Amino acid sequence: MIRSYNISDPHEAQLQTALLNKIDNLTKPKGSLGRLEEIALQIGLIQGTLSPTLNRPHNIIFAADHGIVEEKVSKSPKEITWQQMSNFTHGGAGISFLCRQHGFELVLVDAGIDYDMPRHPAIIDLKVNKGTRNYLKGDAMTTEEMELCLERGALVVDKLNARGCNVLSIGEMGIGNTSASSLWMSCLTEIPLVQCVGAGSGLNTEEVRHKYEVLQRALDNFTLPRSAENVMRRFGGYEMVMTVGAMLRAAELRMILLIDGFIMTNCLLMASKINPLVKSYAIYGHQGDEVGHKLILDYLKARPLLHLDLRLGEGSGSVCCYPIVDSACRMINEMETFAQASITKYF
Amino acid sequence: MIRSYNISDPHEAQLQTALLNKIDNLTKPKGSLGRLEEIALQIGLIQGTLSPTLNRPHNIIFAADHGIVEEKVSKSPKEITWQQMSNFTHGGAGISFLCRQHGFELVLVDAGIDYDMPRHPAIIDLKVNKGTRNYLKGDAMTTEEMELCLERGALVVDKLNARGCNVLSIGEMGIGNTSASSLWMSCLTEIPLVQCVGAGSGLNTEEVRHKYEVLQRALDNFTLPRSAENVMRRFGGYEMVMTVGAMLRAAELRMILLIDGFIMTNCLLMASKINPLVKSYAIYGHQGDEVGHKLILDYLKARPLLHLDLRLGEGSGSVCCYPIVDSACRMINEMETFAQASITKYF
Repeated sequence: MIRSYNISDPHEAQLQTALLNKIDNLTKPKGSLGRLEEIALQIGLIQGTLSPTLNRPHNIIFAADHGIVEEKVSKSPKEITWQQMSNFTHGGAGISFLCRQHGFELVLVDAGIDYDMPRHPAIIDLKVNKGTRNYLKGDAMTTEEMELCLERGALVVDKLNARGCNVLSIGEMGIGNTSASSLWMSCLTEIPLVQCVGAGSGLNTEEVRHKYEVLQRALDNFTLPRSAENVMRRFGGYEMVMTVGAMLRAAELRMILLIDGFIMTNCLLMASKINPLVKSYAIYGHQGDEVGHKLILDYLKARPLLHLDLRLGEGSGSVCCYPIVDSACRMINEMETFAQASITKYF
Repeated sequence: MIRSYNISDPHEAQLQTALLNKIDNLTKPKGSLGRLEEIALQIGLIQGTLSPTLNRPHNIIFAADHGIVEEKVSKSPKEITWQQMSNFTHGGAGISFLCRQHGFELVLVDAGIDYDMPRHPAIIDLKVNKGTRNYLKGDAMTTEEMELCLERGALVVDKLNARGCNVLSIGEMGIGNTSASSLWMSCLTEIPLVQCVGAGSGLNTEEVRHKYEVLQRALDNFTLPRSAENVMRRFGGYEMVMTVGAMLRAAELRMILLIDGFIMTNCLLMASKINPLVKSYAIYGHQGDEVGHKLILDYLKARPLLHLDLRLGEGSGSVCCYPIVDSACRMINEMETFAQASITKYF
């Protein structure tokens, strides 16, 4: 059983009017800061204030392995999952420099890596199991494991929120997780699987076809109703379900959620099937090339801020969009009004 | 006479190979940092190094008035030009918070504002004249004024370069300058004027039609060959020609040029007609809504980094793209290689 989440609807008509009025009186042609204005409004509503602020941004990486990898659905060998986690701890990965650049604290969570990770102070051990089971042969995880993932994801967010964090990016590390994402997407949106399967970290056409065939078989074997619960348990992975729990808890705490690429968008989709209000807290960071990402964004009526052809995962796209979100806050807090600046209001 | 500009071609085959090799050995799937990789390559080539850096970014705003404004081609009254310049000096404008956020020094240049600007230490007085002449009735400026603009633009860049600046954003302030830009664009690309004329700072359909009719008459009256020189002299404005001079000089000095929106893209187009190598130094910051901007970007084979619906000018789009350019440099300098990180190279 998935618990119910108590997420507030941030839309409040009076505050919305006041925010729009404030934004329209800043010294610029009306609407000329485009998406910055849209984000300032969203964040103002989330925080219930005319002067929103961003505090202690964090990027969590949930990492886990996927049993389906034995079917050769991924370009990368499974060992990359733990090796990259280790790389994150010494600051040499893609997400490492992005976090340093944008002032993010990086939180590493072992959600279910199929390796005995050496103890490291930077890695939080919340391992549920050593990798999910191969979902060609049955459920990827048990109901208990799924519930544990949701709880543990929420727990991590509680800790960050207690430190003063109000803006959260989530990334993932898990060889094989575009496969589970494609299955989630097809099950939850009813978009045919073939449109949801892409090249992941770099498959060629033949390899994509093989991946699709494996996943189609997995889907054919899955005969239960396509509820959030059934889909998560069937296909995993641990890092993805933990993300869903983290996203739902972050929205309960009125935190801003920066959404990364294909996998994280699928996690938000899953979270929205559990409580649709979670979407009001989401800012979509990046649209990548992965086939299916555009379709799922359209389904969610989402317009990502960036299109930089990233396909790294790790939260790279959502951390990269942070300066734009920061600009939106600075705009509403730092720009003068026409009256303050003694400028003719010209619209 | 426009002087010739001695711009180096930054493409050097051996360095290019070495840069690509360095980028491909960083701990990420090949190509997975998308446009960051492309920019790292470009900047490495510009700077002639495997370890490019960004130093002392500046945003120059060249400001001037346009005689054509008396024909009611703009939504905003002419007084906005000097009022906004004044607003820039006390930090309350859109570009002000963006420069603070991204560590840009803001340089304000009076290129030809039609107002006796109070002396202010933050405004560099390079006024060529008090606004251009109305180009419905003849040339917007004299040949001497045009040459003076090119020289003065270059002079500003020389000063910034001497301070250690190697990355430059340029913005503009000048009510009426989308009109001159549309004329430049149509003259230099041979795209019909009607496709080059848009809403500027917020004209409605009827007002855009009027603007187009005025500009079409101005174009019909202009019978000289459409050389860079003739087009700049005929249509102005002072801030735009100064920008052209600044861009060409920056490329001579191997500086990185961050290109803002519609007007600045037209200035780069003009600069490229004088010396096409200037394009190798350009990074396109933002694609806005202004009709014609997409067409001119296609003409230049340019892919801007951002699409945020900005239409503020002032260099806002090019300053906003800076974190992405910074990320590209950090990527190539800070990421570990597979060998350094002891990770299986998986492609």
